[in-house]
Amino acid sequence: MEINPDCLEQLERIVGTPYFSAHREDLVCYGYDATATLHVPDAVVFPSSAQQVSQIMKLAAAFRTPVIPRGGGSGMTGGALAVKGGIVVVFNRMNRIVEIDQENLIARVQPGVITAEFQNQVKRHGLFYPPDPSSAGFSTIGGNLAECAGGPKAVKYGVTRDYVLGLEAVLPTGEIVKTGVRTAKGVVGYDLTRLIVGSEGTLVLITEATVKLLPLPESVMTLTAAFASMNAAARAVSEIIRSHIVPRTIEFLDNASIRLAEGYLHVGLPVDAGALLIMEVDGKQKEINGLARALEDLSRYLGAVSVTVAETEEQAQQLWQARKAISPALFKLAPHKINEDIVVPRSRVPDLVAKIDDLRRQTGLTMVAFGHAGDGNIHFNIMLDKSDQTALEKANRAVDALFDYTLVLGGTISGEHGVGITKAPYLRKEISGEAISLMQRIKQAFDPLGLLNPGKIFPESIE
Amino acid sequence: MEINPDCLEQLERIVGTPYFSAHREDLVCYGYDATATLHVPDAVVFPSSAQQVSQIMKLAAAFRTPVIPRGGGSGMTGGALAVKGGIVVVFNRMNRIVEIDQENLIARVQPGVITAEFQNQVKRHGLFYPPDPSSAGFSTIGGNLAECAGGPKAVKYGVTRDYVLGLEAVLPTGEIVKTGVRTAKGVVGYDLTRLIVGSEGTLVLITEATVKLLPLPESVMTLTAAFASMNAAARAVSEIIRSHIVPRTIEFLDNASIRLAEGYLHVGLPVDAGALLIMEVDGKQKEINGLARALEDLSRYLGAVSVTVAETEEQAQQLWQARKAISPALFKLAPHKINEDIVVPRSRVPDLVAKIDDLRRQTGLTMVAFGHAGDGNIHFNIMLDKSDQTALEKANRAVDALFDYTLVLGGTISGEHGVGITKAPYLRKEISGEAISLMQRIKQAFDPLGLLNPGKIFPESIE
Repeated sequence: MEINPDCLEQLERIVGTPYFSAHREDLVCYGYDATATLHVPDAVVFPSSAQQVSQIMKLAAAFRTPVIPRGGGSGMTGGALAVKGGIVVVFNRMNRIVEIDQENLIARVQPGVITAEFQNQVKRHGLFYPPDPSSAGFSTIGGNLAECAGGPKAVKYGVTRDYVLGLEAVLPTGEIVKTGVRTAKGVVGYDLTRLIVGSEGTLVLITEATVKLLPLPESVMTLTAAFASMNAAARAVSEIIRSHIVPRTIEFLDNASIRLAEGYLHVGLPVDAGALLIMEVDGKQKEINGLARALEDLSRYLGAVSVTVAETEEQAQQLWQARKAISPALFKLAPHKINEDIVVPRSRVPDLVAKIDDLRRQTGLTMVAFGHAGDGNIHFNIMLDKSDQTALEKANRAVDALFDYTLVLGGTISGEHGVGITKAPYLRKEISGEAISLMQRIKQAFDPLGLLNPGKIFPESIE
Repeated sequence: MEINPDCLEQLERIVGTPYFSAHREDLVCYGYDATATLHVPDAVVFPSSAQQVSQIMKLAAAFRTPVIPRGGGSGMTGGALAVKGGIVVVFNRMNRIVEIDQENLIARVQPGVITAEFQNQVKRHGLFYPPDPSSAGFSTIGGNLAECAGGPKAVKYGVTRDYVLGLEAVLPTGEIVKTGVRTAKGVVGYDLTRLIVGSEGTLVLITEATVKLLPLPESVMTLTAAFASMNAAARAVSEIIRSHIVPRTIEFLDNASIRLAEGYLHVGLPVDAGALLIMEVDGKQKEINGLARALEDLSRYLGAVSVTVAETEEQAQQLWQARKAISPALFKLAPHKINEDIVVPRSRVPDLVAKIDDLRRQTGLTMVAFGHAGDGNIHFNIMLDKSDQTALEKANRAVDALFDYTLVLGGTISGEHGVGITKAPYLRKEISGEAISLMQRIKQAFDPLGLLNPGKIFPESIE
């Protein structure tokens, strides 16, 4: 369906000519995300205020045109794609840190603030914002809220949801509402705030968030432990958690990931190890030496073939660069990536790893696994050339089998990437028909015309 | 409206004769809660399974009869009251701790489990469930979930919402649904779990919860600091938080509270102090001595007239008994209590305290304040004889003024008690008309016939 020219004209008037485009060359730039699929919208706008967002939404409602909120476009499941056309609302001009309240350890931020920029700003005040997706350098707080981003520090500190106190948002009917509180507690009315977090831009357009901050830990130590096999590493993780040491991070890399990261950055990772754990402990300077030592001893006891403590901040940073390089470096292996984001109870990670080994053997496909072992959150990738139909079919069957097994183990098919379009066909594997109907009735309560980010989450709506 | 005799007969058949009553002498027992107002239901049932709860709900839907879930009946805002009659569903037979999974630090519990019983059971496994309402000795996990209970440890550990991973629940239409996950992360579909937590029994009947546990802290130290005035104590709290020491608890008692607690238990509280802080630090044995010392020094620096560290576990327990005795002991002062549960940003606690002093002076009423200073969460009580019309009107005006000022300070009118019936008339002070309409549409999405716990939260529905 073509967009109405009157709608375009009024859109341009709302945001101003420099902040509007309906030219195809501009639209293409806002037609893709990290899923590398293209859905060209009808228009793109760059509003500067909640009032403008409200006017855009009211206009879209009048013309029955879809609206798609967009942050950094780094989403892994297609959340920012205009799969039904419509108006893409890019939040990059709404990128102010409105307030950092050091007395009450809270901040107010606009959705277009880059996550790492926000982390750095609060750090300057001796404060700490723990959610930290791998994309933090280019993803936005708005996108993090929409997907409920996690990242490596979730083991100790939780995910985005755990840091949001309140929101300002535009409803699909155009009203601006405030949800939640700016205090440590608050239970007045339904918890709209946490219902909105993780709703993938399908319920509201977030225009401001009030988030909780923590005191910045005095010190952090990073260590790596290499294991002969993924299985040995997975068992070690389970034992470490049981031991009541709580590292803030326990990441793992399988052998393929280690090789990729090392090939990219040459930081001296053990390329022959079956698996590598990267762990961080934080706290008071006095206590973390002891914690790191305990973790080192425990890792050796649990079969680590080598353990290295990063001696300098620079060494630690290199490890994290290596970890973050894996995802882009994957494309050295093959032109296409099927990327999953499964979670199982921590104690079941060894079972999941064994299953991945089986699937690799059975299919002969290139599979790379890494991720947040401390949460049981595995980023599982199949690298292939999608023009090879046989490989593609094998890969799809492997994903299907892996999802089924993940659910058998008591897990979930997405820990932090969301459902979007790529996982929508699998929603019914995890969520019952009754619960899906209930979610759709909630969607209806927010968005009676179905205009906000249509075609996401629910399988039937993308037919 | 009288309940249909066929409905009663079928109810009795669902749960079995011993677990059903429609006798007035039984019904009266389930007609009150901690608000001390009586609303006698038409029937009371004690189901033993989610299947029975589902059948009860389907039957109630067929007969258009209200259903009211009930835990310990210790709610402060009337959440368990049958204000429109109907069937009270008491969960005390569904009181099994289904599973404590030590490897993954999670537990599955039925809603009727007494909170303290659950805390104690997990403690035996070296684990820790931090939510801890003052009513923990008689409130239930189901009630805690419905109200999103908090308690003193929220400063460091958060509230009930932060520990719930997933739920099993019966919808008002009778279907049994599962929400959430049993893993550390999970973002598939809308966050029904956290929407349900704090919904005060108006959206679903919770039949099981999966909760997160923490490793039990190695050691806890309790100390008290007496101040000349509430204002001095409030300023100290603000400074302590700013100092980046994070005690797990910072409770405060005003002079009236100190006298009440001391009169009740004779544990040697400083009855001439303007205010008393009770603080706890926890962690590794090695580090908490230093933390307690730092807190002691800081308290003295901030003007504490005396600081005492509890030397034994018994001394610490006595302090908590004293703290928990305040609420019941209030009735020594007058036959009726108006009890509020406001929260302000921590740095604004001194302003709020000053306002309470003003109101006390202006009205001449007996006002007692205590609560969770570390969260800015103040339990504010006016003690009076409600048959004294002049006093009652003054008290109502004082509450009105205090709520207005709380909101001016950026606070909320309920931190952990909920809205229920007692705060419903004030809902519009805090929540905009648009947001209330949205909440009502969500209620409709769950409960199209309006049968589950009607007359709660929303002001119009109690007219």
